[in-house]
Amino acid sequence: MSIRKDIDELPKNAANYTALTPLWFLERVAKVHPTRKSLIHGSRHYTWQQTYQRCRRFASALSHCSIGLGNIVTVIAPNVPAVYEAHFGVPMAGAVLNTVNILLNASTVAFLLNHCNASVVIVDQEFFTLAEEALKIWSDKTNTFKPPILIVIGDENCNSKSLSYALSKGAIDYEKFLQSGDPEYNWKPPEDEWQSISLGYTSGTTSSPKGVVLHHRGAYLMALSTALIWGMNEGAVFLWTLPMFHCNVYEAISKYKVTHFCGAPVVLNSIMNAPPEDTILPLPHVVHVNTGGAPPPPSLLSGMSKLGFRITHQYGLSETFGPSVYCAWKPEWDSLPPESKAKLHARQGVRHIALENLEVVNTKTMQPVPPDGKTIGEIVMRGNIIMKGYLKNPKANEESFANGWFHSGDLAVKHEDGVDIENVLYSHPAILETSVVARPDEKWGESPCAFVTLKPGGEDSSNEKGVVEDILSFCRTKMSTYMVPKSVVFGPLPKTATGKIQKNLLRAKANEMGPVKMSKL
Amino acid sequence: MSIRKDIDELPKNAANYTALTPLWFLERVAKVHPTRKSLIHGSRHYTWQQTYQRCRRFASALSHCSIGLGNIVTVIAPNVPAVYEAHFGVPMAGAVLNTVNILLNASTVAFLLNHCNASVVIVDQEFFTLAEEALKIWSDKTNTFKPPILIVIGDENCNSKSLSYALSKGAIDYEKFLQSGDPEYNWKPPEDEWQSISLGYTSGTTSSPKGVVLHHRGAYLMALSTALIWGMNEGAVFLWTLPMFHCNVYEAISKYKVTHFCGAPVVLNSIMNAPPEDTILPLPHVVHVNTGGAPPPPSLLSGMSKLGFRITHQYGLSETFGPSVYCAWKPEWDSLPPESKAKLHARQGVRHIALENLEVVNTKTMQPVPPDGKTIGEIVMRGNIIMKGYLKNPKANEESFANGWFHSGDLAVKHEDGVDIENVLYSHPAILETSVVARPDEKWGESPCAFVTLKPGGEDSSNEKGVVEDILSFCRTKMSTYMVPKSVVFGPLPKTATGKIQKNLLRAKANEMGPVKMSKL
Repeated sequence: MSIRKDIDELPKNAANYTALTPLWFLERVAKVHPTRKSLIHGSRHYTWQQTYQRCRRFASALSHCSIGLGNIVTVIAPNVPAVYEAHFGVPMAGAVLNTVNILLNASTVAFLLNHCNASVVIVDQEFFTLAEEALKIWSDKTNTFKPPILIVIGDENCNSKSLSYALSKGAIDYEKFLQSGDPEYNWKPPEDEWQSISLGYTSGTTSSPKGVVLHHRGAYLMALSTALIWGMNEGAVFLWTLPMFHCNVYEAISKYKVTHFCGAPVVLNSIMNAPPEDTILPLPHVVHVNTGGAPPPPSLLSGMSKLGFRITHQYGLSETFGPSVYCAWKPEWDSLPPESKAKLHARQGVRHIALENLEVVNTKTMQPVPPDGKTIGEIVMRGNIIMKGYLKNPKANEESFANGWFHSGDLAVKHEDGVDIENVLYSHPAILETSVVARPDEKWGESPCAFVTLKPGGEDSSNEKGVVEDILSFCRTKMSTYMVPKSVVFGPLPKTATGKIQKNLLRAKANEMGPVKMSKL
Repeated sequence: MSIRKDIDELPKNAANYTALTPLWFLERVAKVHPTRKSLIHGSRHYTWQQTYQRCRRFASALSHCSIGLGNIVTVIAPNVPAVYEAHFGVPMAGAVLNTVNILLNASTVAFLLNHCNASVVIVDQEFFTLAEEALKIWSDKTNTFKPPILIVIGDENCNSKSLSYALSKGAIDYEKFLQSGDPEYNWKPPEDEWQSISLGYTSGTTSSPKGVVLHHRGAYLMALSTALIWGMNEGAVFLWTLPMFHCNVYEAISKYKVTHFCGAPVVLNSIMNAPPEDTILPLPHVVHVNTGGAPPPPSLLSGMSKLGFRITHQYGLSETFGPSVYCAWKPEWDSLPPESKAKLHARQGVRHIALENLEVVNTKTMQPVPPDGKTIGEIVMRGNIIMKGYLKNPKANEESFANGWFHSGDLAVKHEDGVDIENVLYSHPAILETSVVARPDEKWGESPCAFVTLKPGGEDSSNEKGVVEDILSFCRTKMSTYMVPKSVVFGPLPKTATGKIQKNLLRAKANEMGPVKMSKL
């Protein structure tokens, strides 16, 4: 009695199918709330209608320069409005946005520009000499070098000299560039939602930086589900602290009624320890804070919660459109003692809505580890918020997508109700920071190796052996034998500019150390 | 400098692409909140883990009977847990769910069963004789009739006689059917998110009922964006009043901490007019109410708001996965006088997130009407929450999808900030209910024809002409000449079982009346 043909053959048409793209969100908000504030930056205030028009001008101006499908537009700037506008204006023109970490040096920037063959470089006036230097290195090294269109963003808060200098070097003023575009530019959604929307380079660790290519479909789904998970309902005001955090959080909460912001643990720490006269405690309204990167110690989470901030603890990578796993608070945890609460809060283990599969597996067998809070495995993921792949890097793609999963390279254990990361070690009183990676092991194939930074006062190198023994016996009381590190290495942990511990570097170091001998422990 | 090939050719793979389907939501909540309450029905309480297992059993049991791709599973039941389970269990097996309005008569049900060639009929014990009768009519009329699998849902709250009767007639007990399935059934997402997920028949009006076919992709996007728009965050408790509303709203709010429910204006009216001793006012927490169907009078909206309910006023059709346009409240409206507020609240005009295009057009030219609050046009839509089409009805599909838009058949005007429907007429003190449709017009091609039900006391037929004149002069003071109805017809308005005015019937009637003569008004 199958009527499969009848029921399944109703075709897609212009009325019932369109590519998913976050560009719709901007078009929609400009229609629904044209006069509501979109961006506030110093003395500059825009409405959604203005932002939409500026983005359309941007796209139109790019099109006039024949920038579109397959072109990369690189942006080197802190969090100024132009960066926000680039997130919409560039894909509206069909091109791909590449934002560059402003803490990189000229030769790395040159490497990235060359790798992605940037057609346009948009640079904040403060970073113009960095861009200039990078372009010179690129042109010197490459025979086929064709200079990209160079645009400079002026900033009224900065010394005007650097702007004049950039203009004298032939850079186009960003505002003039916008003016050349049509505010009614008739942008089109991509024909295929799999089209690339952005390219972001991972911090170079042991190898060259890898270019993570993301797609319109994933960006749409990530935005929608993040807003839902994080309660960013009608009226939310977002303080854009990531990746720059140069702004006074309390002042912004008071002045602009900020309801949401992101902050690495280091930012939360400074908020928690601000002198009382700099705060506006108790908070005048609910403020949601998203944190991740380095694992926040439970004491930080409980301290922030006590101040009234609602913390969501997340874990993610560039390759997963940002945070893809988070700690979902359960009402039944409300009545636990503060210390247990904080420990649970420090966990990350719940899939983002558009991440359809999350596992912790033995990488060799691809079998899930048991949910015992002990057995260590690699976090692997599947779903609609995984990158397309790395640009021009078939080897890395093969490795990352082995066996039909995306391999994060991060280690975790599974609790009965989720995933936990390095949590036990953090509860040792002498440990400031830690990161656990796999090290070759003669007996076990691989075993946990803990890199540890001790708290000030604990770094007495003459007593290292005693401290190791203390940490290990502490671990033995808290976790199963499988989980206890077989090696402990002291020292500062290598981090990216955004504060994330560079596990790749640590893994390389653990490999260099050679296998743990049978007899060692 | 295009690197289009490099950047756009990273292929989809098992790790970064999966079909969008709402089935993921159930799998996810069962993992994240296994022990949290999923459904409460009388004395029956389920957890998400249990609901997920019951749905998997359901899918597994269907598979055992070779029900899958291309099979229709028809459900005839009020809001019992089995209906909820069918929404997941049926598509998990790859089949298509068809829920039938329980207020239909046997011959209409027979028409539907035959039209979709139902492979399975699941019926609540209370409606078994209806199903039995419908099956008899179907088998009598069709040479190729093959009896569907017949399953009966028992209800402990009902007389057990009807269940015994159904079992004696060979129907399978729903709970036994579930028991035959595997609670760990390994369901798969559809290979293609365009796969059909459900079939729902529109109320028959002038023609036979049309079978609206919806797809997995749209159901996923509609669910996600509805939760966001309506603030259904973590911890939301939904009272399932639609399409049945036999439950005491205040009791449920108090007992189960309901935060969200849907109600047609008739339901809201009874809530607003409940005797004080039956209420629990002031409300103990925020309760969100979604309303639509017949247009709610502003007084009802303001009355409910005063009681503390947060009303969202929506408009939509089966063809758009339900509500697709709604009234988004603007903070700048907060300070308006109550009457103006209520009028704004009664508007519907903001696109649902996954409805990418909404217009009010002159149907002949497909040109948008001006946003003057006056010029009447037809509501047309485009986007990812539009149906696949009508089952086995190429003519209706051609008409509905003419010119690359979905045609709603509903009339509206555009305000500068959105769409409004029949609002002016509703503000006339003598009008209880009204609906405006297009009628052929010798001079204008088409002109507005108002069908009006007067308030009790106003139906003096000897004075109809005076009332018409009063309404028309009232309209002339409130709207432009284009908008003033050229015909007014009194009488009760035809409605569907869920209280929606049957515009199709009214349009047919307006057509039958023939064109408005040049000289008429």
